[in-house]
Amino acid sequence: MYKVKVYVTLRESVLDPQGTAVKGSLHSLSYNEVVDVRIGKYMELTIEKSDRDINEVVTELCEKLLANTVIEDYRFEVEEVVAQ
Amino acid sequence: MYKVKVYVTLRESVLDPQGTAVKGSLHSLSYNEVVDVRIGKYMELTIEKSDRDINEVVTELCEKLLANTVIEDYRFEVEEVVAQ
Repeated sequence: MYKVKVYVTLRESVLDPQGTAVKGSLHSLSYNEVVDVRIGKYMELTIEKSDRDINEVVTELCEKLLANTVIEDYRFEVEEVVAQ
Repeated sequence: MYKVKVYVTLRESVLDPQGTAVKGSLHSLSYNEVVDVRIGKYMELTIEKSDRDINEVVTELCEKLLANTVIEDYRFEVEEVVAQ
């Protein structure tokens, strides 16, 4: 069994209106020291062992479904979990 | 200047319909080895140095705005960045 953490973020060159909105809210709460906010997605997947290499499988999942690679970047961490 | 990474996840006991939907989509793409998906938010904040302790400031931001502590947990990592 694997625990996989996937981080999907907007590419640097892509505007992030959600982040801009959050920054505006933080400023209106007087947190003027916050100069930038970028918002992304964080996913935790639990995946059973199969014949295929786990990194290859997760890359496929990200490319096909979890990230929109036109505007988003992704990275992931795989951790093997021993069933108890 | 600080780069702060904030991870907001639903509490264990809270149902995650978005994660369930993603799991369903992955199964329909024949990735049946995926047994669980939980979806959260990932935020990157850039914060200027101030007189206050950065961990205290970020905890406040999370409690007040970034996370809904009734149903969500949060954790964060602070990294100091030297201006160039």
